[in-house]
Amino acid sequence: MAVYTDITDDELAEFLARYDIGQVLSFKGIAEGVENSNFLLHTDAGFFILTLYEKRVREGDLPFFLGLMEHLADHGINCPQPVKSRDGQALGRLAGRPAAVVTFLDGMWPRRPEVRHCAALGEALARMHVAGAEFHMTRENALSVAGWTPLFRAAEMRADEVLPGLPVAIAEELSHLERHWPTDLPQGVIHADLFPDNVFFLGDKLSGLIDFYFACNDALVYDLAICLNAWCFEIDASFNITKGMALISAYHRTRALSPAEIAALPTLARGAALRFLLTRLVDWLNVPEGAMVKPKDPIEYVKKLRFHQKVASAREYGLLA
Amino acid sequence: MAVYTDITDDELAEFLARYDIGQVLSFKGIAEGVENSNFLLHTDAGFFILTLYEKRVREGDLPFFLGLMEHLADHGINCPQPVKSRDGQALGRLAGRPAAVVTFLDGMWPRRPEVRHCAALGEALARMHVAGAEFHMTRENALSVAGWTPLFRAAEMRADEVLPGLPVAIAEELSHLERHWPTDLPQGVIHADLFPDNVFFLGDKLSGLIDFYFACNDALVYDLAICLNAWCFEIDASFNITKGMALISAYHRTRALSPAEIAALPTLARGAALRFLLTRLVDWLNVPEGAMVKPKDPIEYVKKLRFHQKVASAREYGLLA
Repeated sequence: MAVYTDITDDELAEFLARYDIGQVLSFKGIAEGVENSNFLLHTDAGFFILTLYEKRVREGDLPFFLGLMEHLADHGINCPQPVKSRDGQALGRLAGRPAAVVTFLDGMWPRRPEVRHCAALGEALARMHVAGAEFHMTRENALSVAGWTPLFRAAEMRADEVLPGLPVAIAEELSHLERHWPTDLPQGVIHADLFPDNVFFLGDKLSGLIDFYFACNDALVYDLAICLNAWCFEIDASFNITKGMALISAYHRTRALSPAEIAALPTLARGAALRFLLTRLVDWLNVPEGAMVKPKDPIEYVKKLRFHQKVASAREYGLLA
Repeated sequence: MAVYTDITDDELAEFLARYDIGQVLSFKGIAEGVENSNFLLHTDAGFFILTLYEKRVREGDLPFFLGLMEHLADHGINCPQPVKSRDGQALGRLAGRPAAVVTFLDGMWPRRPEVRHCAALGEALARMHVAGAEFHMTRENALSVAGWTPLFRAAEMRADEVLPGLPVAIAEELSHLERHWPTDLPQGVIHADLFPDNVFFLGDKLSGLIDFYFACNDALVYDLAICLNAWCFEIDASFNITKGMALISAYHRTRALSPAEIAALPTLARGAALRFLLTRLVDWLNVPEGAMVKPKDPIEYVKKLRFHQKVASAREYGLLA
């Protein structure tokens, strides 16, 4: 769930007085997302999402995130659009926190992604990468290879509680990836967290992408590697090559992958698996007393990592050479 | 927060196929309410609330609750209206639970109720009581005086942990109320849980009442006693007589209180305070491991009860005799 901060009606009215979106008609906390507090806002002007940025989001990054959403929306990508206040600001303050209003996006995220969803995702991801090319701001990926060692150090002492032998397995993988991580691939703005709950569909049609709060500059194909992890495994951690094929080929049709990108895919997929393994591991070992968010299971990503470690080429993900 | 059950898109589509409300456009869990799982549902036909009834609600009571909402809406009370399926049913099943779709009600609940809110509440409560007079179904109040002893037994052994001396204080109050509880007051359908988060306002205007899942048949003025507890105390547990006056006089103008009802008010207010003290106490002492709902503080109602114990007549609540 995701309402960490309660807002009084007076605070809300004062905040919204800065916007041209009419009177508040309704205001409800939404039980989705884990990083921020999200509210569904109904006003005379329609439905919006009001987000309060909680402490896990760095305030200095917000202009990048909001600017990116605006840029992508201007370039034909269906995503929440920041609504500006009368004085042209996308970012305000509410209840002592940075806050923004964005447009409400219809659609449902697929609880059980199927092959057709993976195909639609591949096309949308490639279109997003192309649309992001001219975005003028940059943000480093704090959760790329250089950020993994600090995460590992935070979890190392207790990782054995989750799975015996896990600390050694992670240390070896880290060492491997640090030596083999590709650095010369085409760069651009990536979403970096495009899990099924961030992709909306109306029927079979992809209707929009949300939650750009991990977006950053990195190798574009790393985003595809994240999606392979997030969309193409079954509940039992088996890889579904038909989904992989649908995802990769739809991406490739819209933005052609270079031979170097294709060659790097297994390494990037290992890195993506390790990245989510590490953040889940840290969250798992640090659940605060009385937590309202149940952490996600890190073991899922141990299994995915093991799969990628055996992959020799992108063919095994379904790429038709 | 209140999403205890996740629903797949396929389950939802199958459920909604029974209704004439078009295709699903969006579906989000709402972080409000504590008894059931609530979702905001957007379809071609508009916005709705989809509720999944969790185990604390008795399935046999649902026809009463849904029937009451329909009856009240038909009699001019603004409240969520059950939407019937094509075969005329207000109650269906989804994800293994009883489920209903109701209309979406605009409005915001007052985070800090003021005198004007109390006045609007008094009128709405009286109108609801009048409108409920012809409702043909009945439901006993399981949380009236006969239900308090079992609640107390469930908490007695550990009530000292919350406040030293609390078990004795509750036992004495229970004994007093069992001897003095009035039984000959005008009866009818009461809401029984009309706290600020169940009353919506648009600006200063009361726009609707929600959450009828404690509604039952009881002394009408007991509902007023509950509202005195829920609306007319300040954060520091001091009673605000201006709010009490606004609430009672607005009620009285719409539905005249009898001398017997007025005389019973202090006893009923004590009973209402004890009822919420007991349910909060039980919840407080039984927070499950990893609970997603933070229990409400029982001490607030200890303080309110102490206030009512000193009240000699309804004048002290602001009634202008």
